Amino acid sequence: MNTEHQNLRLIASCPDRIGILAKVATFIAGKGGNITEANQYEDVRTQTFFMRYGFKLPGAAPELESFKGDFAAVADEFEMDWRISNIDYRQRVVFLVSKFDHCLAYLLHRWKVGDLKIDIPCVISNHETLRDLVEWYGIPYHHVPVPKEVEAKQLAFGKTAGIIEAAKPDTIVLARYMQIFPSWLCETYRHQVINIHHSFLPSFLGAKPYHQADERGVKLIGATCHYVTEDLDQGPIIEQDVTRVRHSDSIEEMMRLGKDVENVVLARGLRYHLEDRVIVHGNKTILFID
Amino acid sequence: MNTEHQNLRLIASCPDRIGILAKVATFIAGKGGNITEANQYEDVRTQTFFMRYGFKLPGAAPELESFKGDFAAVADEFEMDWRISNIDYRQRVVFLVSKFDHCLAYLLHRWKVGDLKIDIPCVISNHETLRDLVEWYGIPYHHVPVPKEVEAKQLAFGKTAGIIEAAKPDTIVLARYMQIFPSWLCETYRHQVINIHHSFLPSFLGAKPYHQADERGVKLIGATCHYVTEDLDQGPIIEQDVTRVRHSDSIEEMMRLGKDVENVVLARGLRYHLEDRVIVHGNKTILFID
Amino acid sequence: MNTEHQNLRLIASCPDRIGILAKVATFIAGKGGNITEANQYEDVRTQTFFMRYGFKLPGAAPELESFKGDFAAVADEFEMDWRISNIDYRQRVVFLVSKFDHCLAYLLHRWKVGDLKIDIPCVISNHETLRDLVEWYGIPYHHVPVPKEVEAKQLAFGKTAGIIEAAKPDTIVLARYMQIFPSWLCETYRHQVINIHHSFLPSFLGAKPYHQADERGVKLIGATCHYVTEDLDQGPIIEQDVTRVRHSDSIEEMMRLGKDVENVVLARGLRYHLEDRVIVHGNKTILFID
Amino acid sequence: MNTEHQNLRLIASCPDRIGILAKVATFIAGKGGNITEANQYEDVRTQTFFMRYGFKLPGAAPELESFKGDFAAVADEFEMDWRISNIDYRQRVVFLVSKFDHCLAYLLHRWKVGDLKIDIPCVISNHETLRDLVEWYGIPYHHVPVPKEVEAKQLAFGKTAGIIEAAKPDTIVLARYMQIFPSWLCETYRHQVINIHHSFLPSFLGAKPYHQADERGVKLIGATCHYVTEDLDQGPIIEQDVTRVRHSDSIEEMMRLGKDVENVVLARGLRYHLEDRVIVHGNKTILFID
Repeated sequence: MNTEHQNLRLIASCPDRIGILAKVATFIAGKGGNITEANQYEDVRTQTFFMRYGFKLPGAAPELESFKGDFAAVADEFEMDWRISNIDYRQRVVFLVSKFDHCLAYLLHRWKVGDLKIDIPCVISNHETLRDLVEWYGIPYHHVPVPKEVEAKQLAFGKTAGIIEAAKPDTIVLARYMQIFPSWLCETYRHQVINIHHSFLPSFLGAKPYHQADERGVKLIGATCHYVTEDLDQGPIIEQDVTRVRHSDSIEEMMRLGKDVENVVLARGLRYHLEDRVIVHGNKTILFID
Repeated sequence: MNTEHQNLRLIASCPDRIGILAKVATFIAGKGGNITEANQYEDVRTQTFFMRYGFKLPGAAPELESFKGDFAAVADEFEMDWRISNIDYRQRVVFLVSKFDHCLAYLLHRWKVGDLKIDIPCVISNHETLRDLVEWYGIPYHHVPVPKEVEAKQLAFGKTAGIIEAAKPDTIVLARYMQIFPSWLCETYRHQVINIHHSFLPSFLGAKPYHQADERGVKLIGATCHYVTEDLDQGPIIEQDVTRVRHSDSIEEMMRLGKDVENVVLARGLRYHLEDRVIVHGNKTILFID
Repeated sequence: MNTEHQNLRLIASCPDRIGILAKVATFIAGKGGNITEANQYEDVRTQTFFMRYGFKLPGAAPELESFKGDFAAVADEFEMDWRISNIDYRQRVVFLVSKFDHCLAYLLHRWKVGDLKIDIPCVISNHETLRDLVEWYGIPYHHVPVPKEVEAKQLAFGKTAGIIEAAKPDTIVLARYMQIFPSWLCETYRHQVINIHHSFLPSFLGAKPYHQADERGVKLIGATCHYVTEDLDQGPIIEQDVTRVRHSDSIEEMMRLGKDVENVVLARGLRYHLEDRVIVHGNKTILFID
Repeated sequence: MNTEHQNLRLIASCPDRIGILAKVATFIAGKGGNITEANQYEDVRTQTFFMRYGFKLPGAAPELESFKGDFAAVADEFEMDWRISNIDYRQRVVFLVSKFDHCLAYLLHRWKVGDLKIDIPCVISNHETLRDLVEWYGIPYHHVPVPKEVEAKQLAFGKTAGIIEAAKPDTIVLARYMQIFPSWLCETYRHQVINIHHSFLPSFLGAKPYHQADERGVKLIGATCHYVTEDLDQGPIIEQDVTRVRHSDSIEEMMRLGKDVENVVLARGLRYHLEDRVIVHGNKTILFID
């Protein structure tokens, strides 16, 4: 008896039609796969069908290749965009940070105790500040200063891109990286770069959102985790949350309170991304949280 | 061309096995049905599979009968508990209340503006207090006093049961009905009777939960919507929420603050129930909110 | 023995100096007043001191007049802006509405059961829609259509202003009034006009905020209660809150979910205002919630 | 000109009487003190008055001693329980932990970046597990195993008490210390020992609250920060919060989600305690959060 199996996930979207689910489920069952999770969503405005299936497939790598090959025919029939990922695969995640360390410290701790199942090839920063923290976790730390001058800045991003490329990341997390991520890098890693913005977007785009929040006198401050695109702070939103502030809270106090929201929102957003729960649809996201 | 169709929902549970989803989806597709919503959940501890499918079936009543007849064979094969409901059917909901009117007033308003798509054959109360409110909405109001003396109380519940039976309800809502619903009525309407309890269960069961909350000095108060069973305030929980209280809030203030939580929790719980999103599993509920 | 007393509230602001609190508290004690509530706040940036004192003063109207006369000297010494209000006074509140009735229905219910201690001289609407609801509560309903054409619109607001003036309101609530409140009326009733905006400001100003929220793909929608000023949706914020939405929520569903947030945010904001808990400071508010 | 001053805080409670505030504020002003924060609360049921004043007093240590000496007379007149603390004093806080490190890791990080202004003389644990983490922060780590056998356990707590005593702590934090803190130690450090319990008390007292929560099928899980007393998990509650769980969340997932709530609730509770915002009144707390 062969008890070997793989835990797989199929993510797909296609024009809505009768029988998609039946075809896909039958295909998986026909290969001996047991579906353990399934999410669907039909966007009625664009008549698009989205699905996310978790399933156990008996066998190992060769069976998976044959599965993929055969599934391509089904996918073609329904004009699907699709991918199959291995649930047990540990994604390689590169972090970029500046000086604020709360998000990074929070995620590294979660990683160390096993709550965050990823590999971290390296952390890149435009400052030296967080080297100690990162190296205590045994992770390589690259310091690439980013000067203001245009050409020097381009060189810095060239170097940054080189380090990223060498790290072969599946996902890049800007954990309070206070530099604008270049468009061409967004293009290269489309829907793979996640940012945490320290406001409840679309309020308070750009720099110093807590100062803007204080200026406007809002009663709640928030944080937004989103995919990075060419348009600053305008990419598809993955997750958001807020916390209450009082008139007596100074900007420093708001920043302190905001840290907890940023931590939790980035951690949730990253987890949704890693678990293939996020599908980008136009400038919005479909979020499969059963 | 026949454009007539029915919007249906299949709710089912069965022992987990390979191919359930494929079989069901294929069956629906084979009948020309288009699946628009689908939720699944596998309880690994009990090896039980739960599913909720929304689909459009071409044709009218006769086609549905034939669909049901044929589906029974599939269901038998997988040892399913199942039911099919019509999404467009307006459930008949009977409300029982005492003197507090906030939950009832909130739901009647939602019903009047079309947010709550139900029919309300009548409201039953052990007091006269809310007659005006109910009759303004054009709904029959039955006053059945419930005396403390055992035999008289039994008679009162017999009368109450008669009114309920005549109303042919699909669902019964105890919208702050301050009497213990008799076991035999729970039995008759198993998983059809919904209560709102004014605490975050399992804290503060029974009477005067706000007084208990004040006594214990909790910092959040809550409300719980649950199915009524023989065990007081112990039935399967459908929905819960909380709100913050301060040391300066008197019990009266806590009751006032609690009203908003009760309203929203009962409204959400009722909606989940009406949309077949709740499956009772032991003393817990599976809640399909995509 | 004279047990007659008045429940009063002193609201004041002045440049920060040593001894303000001592002087005020000693003055109140000297008149036999017993302080039951006290809030203070010092805005360090503008060096301004804000206070809110609740106290019981023995005696009746003449004692109050003499108290006020004598307090004026203290106030002058510290260059105070101040007012004294009677806690037991029921404010006269005029409501303006259009077609959406959830906020009005919610507040009228709260008023009827005694949770909202105000007098309601009338409701004004630019539509006939809500006459039945309002008149059921025994409140006069004025229908003043607001045409689009400039001169006719001015006439309409002249008529509206006349009705408001005749009602001698302490506070005006725009409970989903879908017209821009004229600047000159904002001026007349400065910091007395409260609006509920159906978004988490400063996101989604102006019309159709739920459509804007849907367009941007936010994960939380909100509501904002604020004082109305000349600048549309830019007045000082009193209260805000949010609720979670999902990718599967249509705009209609978002509007339905938003109603609960609007209700609660407006009710809380109005209560803070009625209890003298809100002090406007520039374009922000100080909110004394002990 | 003497610009030297001290930032002080007066916490007091006494039977309610006219003129308390006036007397105290006048006393402070008479000493040249400038009140920057003030909170009061009158518990009407017990006729008790509570106050918390922040003020700047000119001069240094001798002036403070003279201030205290003179204030004692005022305090006696009103039968006050009172204390004066120095706002700039860094409390000495000893942490006790077992194997779960999330609360400790979170607080140590906050401490390192300066958000948590305390001194940490040492961390005590009944396991070796967290030595690396603690020592990386440069903090002494004491491993005191706690055997099950009664006498050995008493010896272990004797040793623990010795380490605590030598550390001269102002506050002791049980940051997921999985041992019952002995009554006699609670007595010695009355209202100085803070615990984080991983449930929304009074639900799920004692061991394995997440298992209990799973068993009952609650829709929200929570955490409670409270003072430790002789009665297990029954001490005065300082802070609580909750987070949503789904039917699909395993106990392990609930534990993971719960960590964020535990972190934030303990951090908030500890901050309230350190800032003298918590006054214990019977088995409840008054929480001065302006």
